[in-house]
Amino acid sequence: MRIDGTPYRSVWVDADGWAVRIFDQTKLPWSIDILRLTNVGQVADAIRSMQVRGAPLIGAVAAYGVCLALRADASTEAMERDAAMLAATRPTAINLRWAVDRMLTRLRATPGPGRVDAAYAEASAIADEDEAQSRAIGQHGLALIQAIAARKPGRIVNVLTHCNAGWLATVDWGTALAPIYTAHNAGVAVHVWVDETRPRNQGASLTAWELGKHGVPHTVIADNAGGHLMQHGEVNLAIVGADRVTRRGDVCNKIGTYLKALAARDNDVPFWAALPSSTIDWTVSDGVSEIPIEERAAAEVTDITGQLADGTIATLRVAAAGSPAANPAFDVTPGRLVTGLITERGCCEASAAGLRSLFPERA
Amino acid sequence: MRIDGTPYRSVWVDADGWAVRIFDQTKLPWSIDILRLTNVGQVADAIRSMQVRGAPLIGAVAAYGVCLALRADASTEAMERDAAMLAATRPTAINLRWAVDRMLTRLRATPGPGRVDAAYAEASAIADEDEAQSRAIGQHGLALIQAIAARKPGRIVNVLTHCNAGWLATVDWGTALAPIYTAHNAGVAVHVWVDETRPRNQGASLTAWELGKHGVPHTVIADNAGGHLMQHGEVNLAIVGADRVTRRGDVCNKIGTYLKALAARDNDVPFWAALPSSTIDWTVSDGVSEIPIEERAAAEVTDITGQLADGTIATLRVAAAGSPAANPAFDVTPGRLVTGLITERGCCEASAAGLRSLFPERA
Repeated sequence: MRIDGTPYRSVWVDADGWAVRIFDQTKLPWSIDILRLTNVGQVADAIRSMQVRGAPLIGAVAAYGVCLALRADASTEAMERDAAMLAATRPTAINLRWAVDRMLTRLRATPGPGRVDAAYAEASAIADEDEAQSRAIGQHGLALIQAIAARKPGRIVNVLTHCNAGWLATVDWGTALAPIYTAHNAGVAVHVWVDETRPRNQGASLTAWELGKHGVPHTVIADNAGGHLMQHGEVNLAIVGADRVTRRGDVCNKIGTYLKALAARDNDVPFWAALPSSTIDWTVSDGVSEIPIEERAAAEVTDITGQLADGTIATLRVAAAGSPAANPAFDVTPGRLVTGLITERGCCEASAAGLRSLFPERA
Repeated sequence: MRIDGTPYRSVWVDADGWAVRIFDQTKLPWSIDILRLTNVGQVADAIRSMQVRGAPLIGAVAAYGVCLALRADASTEAMERDAAMLAATRPTAINLRWAVDRMLTRLRATPGPGRVDAAYAEASAIADEDEAQSRAIGQHGLALIQAIAARKPGRIVNVLTHCNAGWLATVDWGTALAPIYTAHNAGVAVHVWVDETRPRNQGASLTAWELGKHGVPHTVIADNAGGHLMQHGEVNLAIVGADRVTRRGDVCNKIGTYLKALAARDNDVPFWAALPSSTIDWTVSDGVSEIPIEERAAAEVTDITGQLADGTIATLRVAAAGSPAANPAFDVTPGRLVTGLITERGCCEASAAGLRSLFPERA
């Protein structure tokens, strides 16, 4: 996607052919800082600190992390150790483990001097495939938006989204935002309700910034507001991303997603999750009991970072002094509350049968 | 309630016998600023700017505002004009209009030199009754908490609340927090999940501060987290306050309340609203379509105030530059999602029949 006219992906290999470039997403929307990662430790730190985040993107960046690890030590022993370290940087999004496993599968079969080149080729394939999958999700989701637009001619389709599942969360285009960008580019009038997404505010910062840079009409709202808007007919469709989807269609995504799904169900608003197949964990069935939910630092809740009037970036304490905080980073929306899943292969019901219909090789 | 051992109400008449004292709640929890209000314009500004907030408290403060108005001009014409101005300061909480109407009913019948004294007497009665009602709500709610404690002996009762319905929202004790304080004082082990309550953070600032000052164990959470906690059995009971309850039991309260009620229903968690009878609007039935929802400034969503590490209070922009925001301040939870109402007369079903059973004179 473009920033002020210049096209970018959210991860790429530097002009030297080996170092890895990312945006420091903890600095957005206040400044566009492009980081150069040259070793696997930096990659792990970037994932842990959420300089890169978004399930598909951390998968792609971790794949490049394996490349950087192999440049330092291409032995199988080091590769296995560094890959395990990368896979453990964050527990919930399954794409991370998927990408690392895919790299290992390829590279275990490629010992010797060709291993580093094979790693870059595989990481590049993961990134290219992710972009292609996001484009396909955009096309499949476009049909959903067009169908709603057809029922309310001349009027704006209002889409609610939570957190950031845009191009910054993938290699390009996004998951939840891909249909929105695709519809906007196709001339469909869309307007996006952007959940702020406390505690890290990825909606108000990243999603609002992305949409603004692309010229998509949008309005930031507190996470608390979506149910009220749905009650009053102000939301035609909700689309969210996912960090892990179980084989029966439970959707693990940013904390708060479940609350919006409940409101959508109570108000007959279609609620879709958009995800590439790398987000599906075929080993897990019951998301609520089986998916590990990352507990992040209390300071993410009690403190908040933003920009002072003079442009300085600062961090404030917003909670009463001495009050403790808890910070579960994800929740699970049972498939029964999800209208359907938008994948690179098309749309399906959020159920075991639905997923089997699109991915028969997994049946 | 006490601050560092000293007992306070949230509104009182100054030692001079006529000026009105309030805490500037926009300064809490960072500093305890007690304001002295000496004319009706200051009272209106304090309500509009949310230096005082909470449905019962703004009713009591508005009553004192009528007193200050009459000190300047005790004519019926001025009284009616100033009362109408006070009643229009905020649109959603019904206690404001209820208190002003009660003052007018008394004072229209009291022309002449006794009017000012009668006003202070009536405002004082409103404040005293509010405190008594909060105490009674505490006793009735205590029974609910004790019943849960009895089913899990030796374990902590986890109560989730949203926004601030504590002593700062009433004259004393609170509505939703009154049962919690009463239980804590009675030796029942309670722990409170405190919803941050974006955009104005009254949970993280006011509720956490109140509970901390009183020594009640609590944990601040993002508004997004409550559903996840309920899914995992971490919430035994939810209690919220109310800004207006309709005669069929729909509960209008701080934006986001509806989402928690949906999650409570989905997880079989009892969901109660606590309120004095002055919060019931007997003229309204369908809360979603009939209650006016205040739309507040976008800056409350895009910007946030807190304390820098050096102790300075500052305001940050947290949303992407140029992105607009919407800020509905309340939502309506249909009575079907509310387990029951806790009032000064006892508990009842959130329905027309339930309310009639407690308030037969309104039938």
